[in-house]
Order: sequence, then C-alpha cells, then structure tokens
Amino acid sequence: MAHIELPPGLAGIRGLLAYRPETAQPLNELVAVLLHGPHTLTPGERELIATCVSAENECTYCASIHGAIAAQHLGDDEALVEQVTRDRESAPISGKMKALLHIAAKTAEGGGCVTTEDVARAREHGATDLEIHDTVLIAAVFCLCNRYVDGLATWTPDDPEFYRARARVIADHGYTLAATKNS
Amino acid sequence: MAHIELPPGLAGIRGLLAYRPETAQPLNELVAVLLHGPHTLTPGERELIATCVSAENECTYCASIHGAIAAQHLGDDEALVEQVTRDRESAPISGKMKALLHIAAKTAEGGGCVTTEDVARAREHGATDLEIHDTVLIAAVFCLCNRYVDGLATWTPDDPEFYRARARVIADHGYTLAATKNS
Repeated sequence: MAHIELPPGLAGIRGLLAYRPETAQPLNELVAVLLHGPHTLTPGERELIATCVSAENECTYCASIHGAIAAQHLGDDEALVEQVTRDRESAPISGKMKALLHIAAKTAEGGGCVTTEDVARAREHGATDLEIHDTVLIAAVFCLCNRYVDGLATWTPDDPEFYRARARVIADHGYTLAATKNS
Repeated sequence: MAHIELPPGLAGIRGLLAYRPETAQPLNELVAVLLHGPHTLTPGERELIATCVSAENECTYCASIHGAIAAQHLGDDEALVEQVTRDRESAPISGKMKALLHIAAKTAEGGGCVTTEDVARAREHGATDLEIHDTVLIAAVFCLCNRYVDGLATWTPDDPEFYRARARVIADHGYTLAATKNS
C-alpha cells in the first residue's frame, strides 16, 4: 500500500502524477524532451540509459516500464535489454553506448563519481558534449523518478505483460499524451 | 573544469541551464512549484529540505545556495541552517520538520528506505499527505540536481558571500525570473 492516499488503479509514477498535476506537468515535459525529443541518440538508446539507472537503483516499476519501452524501440528485443542491464560491457551495443552507460551508472552512484577518464572514454568513442550532458541528466532524472516512485511505496504490478501493454501506449502517443490515456 | 564546454561565468546548475534551455524550462518550473508555490510548509522549511538532501549528497554548490536561501527565509539565521544540516534532531525546529527531514534523508539514501514507521512519525506530528508527498519529491528533485551539478563537474565558488548575494536575487525574483538575472 502506498504511503499516502493516491488515485486508485494507476501504477507507479502515474498515481503520483495524477495526485499532483502542478508538479506532473513540468516532470512529464522534462522526461518527454530528454527521451522523445530530437536527438543524436536514438529513443532506444536513451531508454536504455533510463532502464539501467532504474535497475541500478532497484526501482522495479521504472526498470520494467522503461525496459519494455527500450525493447520495443530496439526491434522488440527484450533479451538485449536484459543483457545490457545485467552486463553492459559484454552486450552487443556500441562502444559509445557502453561508455555513456558507464557515466550514467557513476551518476546514479553520486555526481562526484564521474571522472574525467569516464568522460574521455565516451569522447574517444565519438560522444558529443550534448550526448554526455544528456546522459548525465537522464541518469539524474531517473534518480529522481526512482526515489519518487519507491519513496512513496506506489503500486508495482508483477506481470511483464502489464509493462509491455503500457509501453505500446507510450510508444504510440509519447509521454505527455500517454499520461492522459488510461489503457 | 567542467566535463563539457559550458557558457562562462555561471556557477553550478546555472551554466547547465543556460547550455540546454529545452530541459532548463521544465526543471526551473518544477523547482519553482515545489519550493516557491503556495504551501502549508513555509519556503524556509522547504529550502531546509533541499539543503539537507544536498548536504547528504555532498553537493557543495546546491547545499550552499539553498542553505543561503533557507537562512534568508528563516530570519537570516545561518547558524540554525548549519545546526539542522549537522544534527536535525537536536535543532530548534518542530517535531514535524524533524520527521519530514528524516523522510527526506531516507529518500536520498534510496526510495525503498522510507518505511511506514517514518511516515507514521510524520503523521503523528501533524504532517498531511501533501506535505509527505512534497517532502519526498523535493528530496528526489535534489537528488537529480546534485547529480546534474556534480556529474558534469560544474564551477563551485568557495566564497560564502557569493551564495548570500545569489540567494538575495532568488528571494527577490523567484527561481524562474532569477534564471534570467546575471547578478
């Protein structure tokens, strides 16, 4: 049971967004710009960053929903997302993505953990300033979302099909519009 | 030196906000609603939550600027802010604020660390659902800001007078307008 009384039937962050629309609006917009806005990193790559940070922070709701969205963007490859989350260095992703996911994991640990060597490794693989900036900010935003969702003990469904279905709604409508859809 | 090339002369998060206006806008708005919007917690109490979380996360820039803003809201009492940050349980603040700051510290540690007992303690001292919600969200937002500021190694001035002066601009103009002021 959640720590506060939330609108019924809405899992994870959705109950919180419905509870406090004044903070939901800028939070939805921030996530939409970072994950769905025009970018040199694909939506699948950015969702992978969100998924890995959420897994690192042991937030089952966020790791499940963003893992499902990432998989849909990456050709319905749930096995790939699982592999990246478990051991990114051995996963079949680019050297740049490995370096960016490393920066994201360090950011989740603590801002001061990101070193000039971590950033230099990303640059050697072709990462731009904006890609490095957005990796840190996506990681930081999910450190927010993970703590928001679990700090208030929101409802976390167990069934993977729940997350696949919700991911399809978000893939079709984007984060901002999906927030208004019940299914 | 920051990990990426930022507009010169802007400390902490301000260089990052100037670098990426698309994410700055919703982030500024989120912080403004939470810290400056109408509320049953005073601006000073909400700034104390931001300050304590930032100190917990060892983010000198955020702890210094929000500590300076909190002090200004609390009758220019820098000693009180310092005492709350060091040992909130012995500080001359309400039982409700001690319980809320405890929830904020647990949120910073990890969302799953907040217990029903922590929440019950806040309720015993009269905290409402909205106050508990906003405490968790303020703490989570500063877990974002702290990681954003330090994850990109932004410029952190040493001089306390720098933060006092900047706090006065924010107190006079609010977060959103202050973002456009250079002094």
